[in-house]
Amino acid sequence: MFYYDGKLQYPVRVQTPDPRFARMLQQAIGGVEGEMRVCLQYLFQAFGARGPAKYRNMLLATGTEEIAHIEMLATAVALNLEGAPDHMKDAAAKANPVVEAVMGGMDPRQYLSAGMAALASDANGVPFDGSHIYASGNIAADMYANVTAEATGRALACRLFELTDDPGMKDMLRFLIARDTMHQQQWLAVIEELGGHQGTLPIPNSFPVEEELRDVSYVFFAPGIEGVPAPEGRFTHGPSLDGLGEYELRPAQPFGQEPQLAPPMPMAYAETQQMLDDPQQGGRQKG
Amino acid sequence: MFYYDGKLQYPVRVQTPDPRFARMLQQAIGGVEGEMRVCLQYLFQAFGARGPAKYRNMLLATGTEEIAHIEMLATAVALNLEGAPDHMKDAAAKANPVVEAVMGGMDPRQYLSAGMAALASDANGVPFDGSHIYASGNIAADMYANVTAEATGRALACRLFELTDDPGMKDMLRFLIARDTMHQQQWLAVIEELGGHQGTLPIPNSFPVEEELRDVSYVFFAPGIEGVPAPEGRFTHGPSLDGLGEYELRPAQPFGQEPQLAPPMPMAYAETQQMLDDPQQGGRQKG
Amino acid sequence: MFYYDGKLQYPVRVQTPDPRFARMLQQAIGGVEGEMRVCLQYLFQAFGARGPAKYRNMLLATGTEEIAHIEMLATAVALNLEGAPDHMKDAAAKANPVVEAVMGGMDPRQYLSAGMAALASDANGVPFDGSHIYASGNIAADMYANVTAEATGRALACRLFELTDDPGMKDMLRFLIARDTMHQQQWLAVIEELGGHQGTLPIPNSFPVEEELRDVSYVFFAPGIEGVPAPEGRFTHGPSLDGLGEYELRPAQPFGQEPQLAPPMPMAYAETQQMLDDPQQGGRQKG
Amino acid sequence: MFYYDGKLQYPVRVQTPDPRFARMLQQAIGGVEGEMRVCLQYLFQAFGARGPAKYRNMLLATGTEEIAHIEMLATAVALNLEGAPDHMKDAAAKANPVVEAVMGGMDPRQYLSAGMAALASDANGVPFDGSHIYASGNIAADMYANVTAEATGRALACRLFELTDDPGMKDMLRFLIARDTMHQQQWLAVIEELGGHQGTLPIPNSFPVEEELRDVSYVFFAPGIEGVPAPEGRFTHGPSLDGLGEYELRPAQPFGQEPQLAPPMPMAYAETQQMLDDPQQGGRQKG
Amino acid sequence: MFYYDGKLQYPVRVQTPDPRFARMLQQAIGGVEGEMRVCLQYLFQAFGARGPAKYRNMLLATGTEEIAHIEMLATAVALNLEGAPDHMKDAAAKANPVVEAVMGGMDPRQYLSAGMAALASDANGVPFDGSHIYASGNIAADMYANVTAEATGRALACRLFELTDDPGMKDMLRFLIARDTMHQQQWLAVIEELGGHQGTLPIPNSFPVEEELRDVSYVFFAPGIEGVPAPEGRFTHGPSLDGLGEYELRPAQPFGQEPQLAPPMPMAYAETQQMLDDPQQGGRQKG
Amino acid sequence: MFYYDGKLQYPVRVQTPDPRFARMLQQAIGGVEGEMRVCLQYLFQAFGARGPAKYRNMLLATGTEEIAHIEMLATAVALNLEGAPDHMKDAAAKANPVVEAVMGGMDPRQYLSAGMAALASDANGVPFDGSHIYASGNIAADMYANVTAEATGRALACRLFELTDDPGMKDMLRFLIARDTMHQQQWLAVIEELGGHQGTLPIPNSFPVEEELRDVSYVFFAPGIEGVPAPEGRFTHGPSLDGLGEYELRPAQPFGQEPQLAPPMPMAYAETQQMLDDPQQGGRQKG
Repeated sequence: MFYYDGKLQYPVRVQTPDPRFARMLQQAIGGVEGEMRVCLQYLFQAFGARGPAKYRNMLLATGTEEIAHIEMLATAVALNLEGAPDHMKDAAAKANPVVEAVMGGMDPRQYLSAGMAALASDANGVPFDGSHIYASGNIAADMYANVTAEATGRALACRLFELTDDPGMKDMLRFLIARDTMHQQQWLAVIEELGGHQGTLPIPNSFPVEEELRDVSYVFFAPGIEGVPAPEGRFTHGPSLDGLGEYELRPAQPFGQEPQLAPPMPMAYAETQQMLDDPQQGGRQKG
Repeated sequence: MFYYDGKLQYPVRVQTPDPRFARMLQQAIGGVEGEMRVCLQYLFQAFGARGPAKYRNMLLATGTEEIAHIEMLATAVALNLEGAPDHMKDAAAKANPVVEAVMGGMDPRQYLSAGMAALASDANGVPFDGSHIYASGNIAADMYANVTAEATGRALACRLFELTDDPGMKDMLRFLIARDTMHQQQWLAVIEELGGHQGTLPIPNSFPVEEELRDVSYVFFAPGIEGVPAPEGRFTHGPSLDGLGEYELRPAQPFGQEPQLAPPMPMAYAETQQMLDDPQQGGRQKG
Repeated sequence: MFYYDGKLQYPVRVQTPDPRFARMLQQAIGGVEGEMRVCLQYLFQAFGARGPAKYRNMLLATGTEEIAHIEMLATAVALNLEGAPDHMKDAAAKANPVVEAVMGGMDPRQYLSAGMAALASDANGVPFDGSHIYASGNIAADMYANVTAEATGRALACRLFELTDDPGMKDMLRFLIARDTMHQQQWLAVIEELGGHQGTLPIPNSFPVEEELRDVSYVFFAPGIEGVPAPEGRFTHGPSLDGLGEYELRPAQPFGQEPQLAPPMPMAYAETQQMLDDPQQGGRQKG
Repeated sequence: MFYYDGKLQYPVRVQTPDPRFARMLQQAIGGVEGEMRVCLQYLFQAFGARGPAKYRNMLLATGTEEIAHIEMLATAVALNLEGAPDHMKDAAAKANPVVEAVMGGMDPRQYLSAGMAALASDANGVPFDGSHIYASGNIAADMYANVTAEATGRALACRLFELTDDPGMKDMLRFLIARDTMHQQQWLAVIEELGGHQGTLPIPNSFPVEEELRDVSYVFFAPGIEGVPAPEGRFTHGPSLDGLGEYELRPAQPFGQEPQLAPPMPMAYAETQQMLDDPQQGGRQKG
Repeated sequence: MFYYDGKLQYPVRVQTPDPRFARMLQQAIGGVEGEMRVCLQYLFQAFGARGPAKYRNMLLATGTEEIAHIEMLATAVALNLEGAPDHMKDAAAKANPVVEAVMGGMDPRQYLSAGMAALASDANGVPFDGSHIYASGNIAADMYANVTAEATGRALACRLFELTDDPGMKDMLRFLIARDTMHQQQWLAVIEELGGHQGTLPIPNSFPVEEELRDVSYVFFAPGIEGVPAPEGRFTHGPSLDGLGEYELRPAQPFGQEPQLAPPMPMAYAETQQMLDDPQQGGRQKG
Repeated sequence: MFYYDGKLQYPVRVQTPDPRFARMLQQAIGGVEGEMRVCLQYLFQAFGARGPAKYRNMLLATGTEEIAHIEMLATAVALNLEGAPDHMKDAAAKANPVVEAVMGGMDPRQYLSAGMAALASDANGVPFDGSHIYASGNIAADMYANVTAEATGRALACRLFELTDDPGMKDMLRFLIARDTMHQQQWLAVIEELGGHQGTLPIPNSFPVEEELRDVSYVFFAPGIEGVPAPEGRFTHGPSLDGLGEYELRPAQPFGQEPQLAPPMPMAYAETQQMLDDPQQGGRQKG
């Protein structure tokens, strides 16, 4: 169960409202790298957590923190949409600077649909998409999903940092970037705690490895045509990271033959010619 | 540029067609953990690769291999939809076993929309969604995205392995599971090559860390209400994985106050009461 | 900012796990009538609230309660997926009852993608769709959106109540149905508080009504062809609910003429015949 | 069955084409508050109408009217895309004003995909999404869904009214705003006809109220942490709107305990550590 | 503008309700081959029609007919959901046959969300997706889009015909299949009227063909690796269908070289190693 | 199985980077008319091909070519995002031209999410949607789907050609436009090879035509109300294109009556008034 206090986790101040920056911030709310996604991802992982109770607790804690990040960013959007932005006044001969803002770069739905507030969508107005909420039931897979979310999330926050000169916005982003740093560390720390690469790989480590086709488990297949150099690196030679094999490089070649599918079943209603030896012969035979 | 030979990378055989398993296989084609996603993710990462050329080459190679995996799985779906499945004959008093299959657990669109073949969608018929194709422009973030895809992908393949007794299908899955093993190793090997945690964290490592709010960069915030124990572990004490700080545990408390938004602008067309001191007073003042 | 205690708002018990019911419960989690939608809808309305502070506070309170409802339902899904369901054992000659469950009516992705836990999607596996999070910036519009959500949500909960005999599930639903009752009352009470129909209609009430085409503001247009009886009722005669007019019934007739669009611009690359007087004359003129 | 006459319900004139306004109008066509949604919502409610025949008739009538609104708006978009907009000529040194329009604020797909015509999508180019077509089978829930659609739709039309100075566009919007006024009244009139709050609440009113947990049916739960004031209003004291209870205010507290899920089933392929007492012990035990 | 009469275009009768067939029918309502798509596609093509007025008229006429097809199918769904289906009584020991239907193959949302009526979604519950409404502004492209819709639509109707033995349903489908026959003919007749292949190809025929790279306009590129036979047929030799060239077969070979992208811009926040000559060197240089 | 050589099929050069054109190019990558769609459409048609082997081979060949087109366009996007675009320098007083580009017309996610590279989405940032991958199992339907894709695709490429003056971009588009010409010819050539209209119509031609309601198979229904002229043309008189009938024109009239649905089932939880003779009587009877 959850509680609130109505306060912001970190101050959100906007010195010079900028409707175009309000659009950019949407990516950090409803985008695939955004806070709605991480918040719900951690909460769903918690709700379905099986195994050691401490991970459920940790996921609940961080998922709960992330709700406050959505709150901060939504507040930042609303504040950026207030007043007549200075940098738009010059370009606009027209009387109404908000019209110009709507017309010139802000997300029009922040006005049309929300009356000057944040939406649950990304910087292009694409609605938040719940399919990005990963909760696989495998803790190692989930931790890597979380690292990915925080790595792309921190890259996003750094890029947003470049797009604003507003001291309030920069201050807020410094906080969020730091939290993304911590959360990257946090999920990777769980991997360490579980034994690192050797303790967790291959994921899932509960599938008996002798059931897989071990002959190709550490082989880099190079499907370049003749003359194309194969890439080489840590992934083509030396011991594998799970300590169970040796990397190897092989040109890609088919183990299988051309697939042979049965002719169409009558009830599938292909064209008659697909059921004939000689497709140049015409249709309507069934009738 | 790309080429083909029309052969399967690994043999695909189905001894006993099973339309319900054909539905399950869709998850490995068009699902978020599926082969369309990894294929296109690696190719888009390659197409946009900036920096060392060898990573473009590697991504192209593995992206190209994955096209063949889509081909194998689509072939497996088509073969599972052929003929009258034995295990459905008993239950069906009706003459037409394909009708029963369509009615009893297969994806109906494999028949209705594809005439007994694979679709570009997941096990619930949800179409493949291109927003899952992550290519962030940051190689470390991308590598973790790829590990995630291969970890959830391998978990999926292992689970599919449980759902079939068909020797041909099990053989195909043994191959795919092994390839997922390799691909997990491969992306993590790039992280190693780039210097491991200390060489890559925090992601992006090109943002000057002194710009972030270092005070909270390694702090685990515990937002449990009074009486709720904070989670503890590798992520609450000891040196951080990037070697730049020390983990720390703190109860979560607001740094900020309640947000104060301006009243609605007239052109936002809120209700009149939202613009009043006393909202119990009624509307239509503007008219 | 938000807090948690790790406990359930109301007990969730499952006496007889039923994977098929676990699928049905997904509708109440990620469906358009579900808890993710109401939770996020109330929170976004709070985050963007302009005007009287008490409504922000109320929206935060109820939005926070709804997070706990997602938690309850996700827990209910996980519990329904545990063990070997009794009512499936009979039908299944096969050794593995979980295979049968996956094959016979449960959401396959609860197994394939989540390892036996809840997903952020509806009863058909369609992912949660953020476009349903309504926060219009107009409090009356938002209150009706919330009533709608709670009315369809309560209908859903009542229907789920019919689909289970499990005493634990019925008990949980009794609680949720009661909360939906309260929440319907709550949002309608705000309408009352704002002055009821006369205080709030037409929504938005801040648009000067003399600007609209008053001639048709209370007219029911009946577009039935000759001989089709027009519907009659409270909406075709008597005073309008906002107290500003009289309902009226009129046959629908066009005020306008056939639209006349300009011919295609050359750069639009229509077919040449679309730019000619006589379209029977052929193409390629431009070349 | 349906008929047409090829004329517009109300005249659509554009004095000064404005490609950017053409983009804004898309929200009223394919947006969640738009005409495609209300049109199809009323028609689907009619097609599935059970109970008194007059409501089917009414829904058919208004659904049919709404098709004409889509027609008007699509015509308005096409007309706004014609010619070289004056207000763009100044800013554009370039020879081709349409290029500038495409590049400077219009929806690029109106040109790229439609050759200067309307799309079935919203102001951000997000395609019309059929999940917003609510038809719940419960007439009171549906009426509130319809009120919501017309309330957000009228707010949208009022906001569009602010964004244009074109007399033709303003005239068209005056008509549409008036129709939204009527349609709000119309759906609420049905609620009145059914007995108002006491006749319709709680929705659905056919579920026996004694089956719900009456103890919490009129309670406002306040989940603020210590020190946070609870919101108060019509929804915290006095008789409930359905006449069946009394509102009440209580601090939120858990009725339940921490959820206990079973450990992962082997076939779910969690990490091995999730199945152990001591997760610090490593993986691969099964193999 | 549009009108209605409340009658069905063709009788819809269901002798034996079948909830599973009700699910299948959804594909013909909200699926990509369904009636919502063709209806809206023809109407949007009409609303944006530029050029000869008769095609606007024709598109309006057929678009209007298609609304009635949605009505027929939605009615068919509702009728198939009524009563206790006979073929389910046997299998069900349980008292409640509707529960069994919901649990055993019908679309659960037809009950949960619609109270036993049709939804605006496909046979897998995926909502109708407006991006399938093609209206390109080029009449030849649109006619082929329409032929495609009617060809896949007729295939769908034929497949549905196989899935039912109900005489009422078969009768309705006979009508719809015949209409699809006509509509295929109709759109192709427009192509004939415009001059057939030579009058319409290449589409758009208003682009000056000398601007394209004529060297490859009629070449079939065969990208098979060495040893893979090239496909041959009408498309590899003989005059092209537009009468402007000769088909030709060539092995695929690159005209271009390896792409060279610039290194990441600093503000893109790639990993530092992506900006170095030697990526084995580690990160954090900027700080 | 597939191979690559790392080279571009045709040179991609950008003389003057233009971030706004980079946005436009996205439509040709991830839009409904774009290369991802045709690529995957042809490959899925190949993977599911039943009947003459040569068509599988042809589809594989052209599907493989299209992967290279995605590569070319993604490269073009990346190159257009490099450097400081000249035409933006004037308008921007600000120091940072990339900021201006992000703010002034480019797709913000090309920067925010991809760090200056292509996305798998369209010109409005809507993600690639796999439901557009048509593979119906009927070769004639599929060929028309392919013609449609190449006709709308060529129209798109021609329109992009208008939006750029860059000689490198124009050169690349000349190549792509020519390939679209060929591919239109190619799919129509298959129709010719199968016997043209008489050999392929109605699609599917394997359904016995006597099963359809032949009375309406060649009738154009005109649903105009009284006074509206029916459209006439090749589709209203003369022999049908399949040689099996005569076109005919008839006013549209209902064959059916008003639909009669049963009252709501109790378990559907409609409002009580929907189950009564006199709906003015109120609710809660069940309780």
